[in-house]
Amino acid sequence: MVSVGSISAGLDRHRDAVEEALEEFVQQRMAGSEAPAMKLAGDILLAGGKRYRPVISILAYEAAGGDDVSEVMNLALAGEIIHTATLVHDDIYDQSKVRRGKPTLHTSSGLPHAIIAGDYLFALGFGLGGRHDDRVVERVAEACGRIATGELQQLEHIGNLATTPEDYYTIVDGKTAFPFASGCWGAAVIAKAPEATITALELFGMEFGRAFQMVDDLLDLTGELSMGKPRGTDVYDGKMTLPIIHALTMLHGVEREQLADVLQNFSDERWEELIELLDAAESLDYVKQLIENHIERAMEALGTLPRTEARDMMFELVKISESRRN
Amino acid sequence: MVSVGSISAGLDRHRDAVEEALEEFVQQRMAGSEAPAMKLAGDILLAGGKRYRPVISILAYEAAGGDDVSEVMNLALAGEIIHTATLVHDDIYDQSKVRRGKPTLHTSSGLPHAIIAGDYLFALGFGLGGRHDDRVVERVAEACGRIATGELQQLEHIGNLATTPEDYYTIVDGKTAFPFASGCWGAAVIAKAPEATITALELFGMEFGRAFQMVDDLLDLTGELSMGKPRGTDVYDGKMTLPIIHALTMLHGVEREQLADVLQNFSDERWEELIELLDAAESLDYVKQLIENHIERAMEALGTLPRTEARDMMFELVKISESRRN
Repeated sequence: MVSVGSISAGLDRHRDAVEEALEEFVQQRMAGSEAPAMKLAGDILLAGGKRYRPVISILAYEAAGGDDVSEVMNLALAGEIIHTATLVHDDIYDQSKVRRGKPTLHTSSGLPHAIIAGDYLFALGFGLGGRHDDRVVERVAEACGRIATGELQQLEHIGNLATTPEDYYTIVDGKTAFPFASGCWGAAVIAKAPEATITALELFGMEFGRAFQMVDDLLDLTGELSMGKPRGTDVYDGKMTLPIIHALTMLHGVEREQLADVLQNFSDERWEELIELLDAAESLDYVKQLIENHIERAMEALGTLPRTEARDMMFELVKISESRRN
Repeated sequence: MVSVGSISAGLDRHRDAVEEALEEFVQQRMAGSEAPAMKLAGDILLAGGKRYRPVISILAYEAAGGDDVSEVMNLALAGEIIHTATLVHDDIYDQSKVRRGKPTLHTSSGLPHAIIAGDYLFALGFGLGGRHDDRVVERVAEACGRIATGELQQLEHIGNLATTPEDYYTIVDGKTAFPFASGCWGAAVIAKAPEATITALELFGMEFGRAFQMVDDLLDLTGELSMGKPRGTDVYDGKMTLPIIHALTMLHGVEREQLADVLQNFSDERWEELIELLDAAESLDYVKQLIENHIERAMEALGTLPRTEARDMMFELVKISESRRN
């Protein structure tokens, strides 16, 4: 039996392995023909981040019975690099000024550089994902297609007060849950796990990914200013996250009108008003409950696998990620 | 022996096959989860274009001895789709309003949609390229990385009157010649051609790609307004194309100063002045001669292959593409 301390140390070890592999990957391309692109892309790639995606892929590989982490590292890095590509492009059209505590790429280097650096990161991610067998390659491409689709649907619903919870789930599944699920699925495929294990890990990734995005969306409303990302960004951007959608459904009459007005004419001065309305609708509690449900389903899926150190670490990682909201 | 008429008909047949395959590809994704993204991307994908890239890949496959075109179609479409992705993103930062006679995507749908549609197209292209074996997948990713690098270097040299011919070639090789070369190389690999054939076709693609881009750059200065792309766009954008680089090197004294002034303060009224200076430096003739040289080397590379209908068509295609400049 492993202690919580050793689990935590194990997680750190995996994160360090990812960090090291990323650094080596960047370093190899800092000379030669790709240097100009890597100088831009490397900065953002190595600027930190919690590396949830690659760490989960590696753990899924181990939990699926894989015993040579180098086999799954390309997929793990591909996930992180493609994720970073989407962040660079998202930041452009969200007009975000800060990412991971540093100026966003388009702020520091301009729009053209940021678009190209994102494209370059996509190419790198695909190149890494492409080193695996056909099923995995197709899945990586499919996940990227779904990310784009999710992002588009999010755009379509900007400022749309009639957005439904189903719309929200379509968006979250496309941009976050399916990529998480694909990272776990691919890792299990690479580990040559039996079909039941592959499916369990895919389901884990899907449910964990949903919870992960919902925690993120909740943090936008409840997070501390110190978290490196300004509070209320989604509200300013008109993004219809689940707490907002829920409150719009639950409130009636004057309160509903007031909420619509707050959302449509949002400013920092209206922050307290927004939170009071969300409290009145019990929307934050509602979303916390849904997060619990997704976490529980993720845990259940994990529970079908044999107990291993990797599985213990995945349980732990889920808890850590969930506690981000407090 | 095949007549020019039948060659031309053969080229049309290949182009039609590409067009049909593209339409089917788009159609398959117009329902289901990818529909919102494909609605955007499909419009630009099917808006025309001469399909040089995919047609050349298919011809290279046949010239390399391949006898089942369906084997190479994924690679051919990947090339066209990735090319279209770069056009969508280029148009954003070049602030182009028109592409293929229609409003550019960011003009009609806005910046966020255009960024995401480009990303989606990249994902589609990679997904198709990913259906081939590891060598080809890595090459597709490498080509995409080089495109990004070439674009970045182009940006770095915007308005830089000290840009050298070497800089120009680095840019052209990255954004155009290497992708062309990769399309031919990959096609020959898929056809399981001997190494000498693969190398000859790669060289053909490289030299043809250089000529192709140089014709494009020349057309910006000599082209008719009717070509769907406004004349002088590169000059307005401060892009240092070879005729400009050459003239800056050849002219001295007052003329050199005048050219620098024209470039730095360009407007439609200074068009004649620019062309007169390029004529004085014989820069257009110089570039035409270089194009001839690259075409010749492309033809030489082709000449090492056994004579086939596909090889005849490639010769013909080179001539057609070259004559664009008249």
